[in-house]
Amino acid sequence: MSESNTTEDRLRLLIERIERLEEEKRGISQDISDVYAEAKAVGYDVKVMKVIVKLRRMQPEDRREMDMIVDTYKNALGLD
Amino acid sequence: MSESNTTEDRLRLLIERIERLEEEKRGISQDISDVYAEAKAVGYDVKVMKVIVKLRRMQPEDRREMDMIVDTYKNALGLD
Amino acid sequence: MSESNTTEDRLRLLIERIERLEEEKRGISQDISDVYAEAKAVGYDVKVMKVIVKLRRMQPEDRREMDMIVDTYKNALGLD
Amino acid sequence: MSESNTTEDRLRLLIERIERLEEEKRGISQDISDVYAEAKAVGYDVKVMKVIVKLRRMQPEDRREMDMIVDTYKNALGLD
Repeated sequence: MSESNTTEDRLRLLIERIERLEEEKRGISQDISDVYAEAKAVGYDVKVMKVIVKLRRMQPEDRREMDMIVDTYKNALGLD
Repeated sequence: MSESNTTEDRLRLLIERIERLEEEKRGISQDISDVYAEAKAVGYDVKVMKVIVKLRRMQPEDRREMDMIVDTYKNALGLD
Repeated sequence: MSESNTTEDRLRLLIERIERLEEEKRGISQDISDVYAEAKAVGYDVKVMKVIVKLRRMQPEDRREMDMIVDTYKNALGLD
Repeated sequence: MSESNTTEDRLRLLIERIERLEEEKRGISQDISDVYAEAKAVGYDVKVMKVIVKLRRMQPEDRREMDMIVDTYKNALGLD
């Protein structure tokens, strides 16, 4: 095989690996949407679930500190 | 002026209007970053400020309802 | 005025400046959408216009180099 | 098991399914970054590769039509 073909093959292989991974990623994004749709169908609030997922990713101490600052700022601005 | 030129001019004018607006938009995004940088410099928590800006855009009743559901879900999952 | 009030006012002023800027930014985003809608109404392809806006932001030499590499990769992958 | 516990468990299970999927998705995003890093390391242009991945997702006839319109607009605006 000529050098040029080898280079072309290498590019093609890299592109195809990316395409397979992008395909998988779209599949998982669809699965996530499906779980949220299922949750919504049984009465859960999807927007709040997304807040909860975000909060659970935080370290407990960071989350508590952030909650405290949010409350302080809400009070400062008269937001109840 | 030929018809072709008129069409080309129309496209050019539309593109240039978009470019001016995009430029303005980038300027405002920069201004927003500058205010947050100023806030940070005097000790405010930028992440929390963004939460507050979002909360203030909500209708008060929607915000209170959402807070209540967030608390319910946090309790259900043992998140304090 | 008490020190606490001064601090609260400062936070409020910062938040209000951000809100005004965010409002302006939303207005400009809407203006951009309106120009694209106007262009579409007279027959232009909005997707291609966005490509053109992006190309015009690049330095001419960068744009030409990129075009050349795109062509090379397209040829390598048999994409005409 | 009380009804309340069942509801809490259901919410927890839904949240945990989402968290596992989000974790998988982050893993795949990392894999994609790794392939691009590998491609860059052997001399490929990552930005152009992303253009190519986008072009290959289009139907060939759509891609050819779009290329043609891009060329027309470039000519109209004197972009070579």
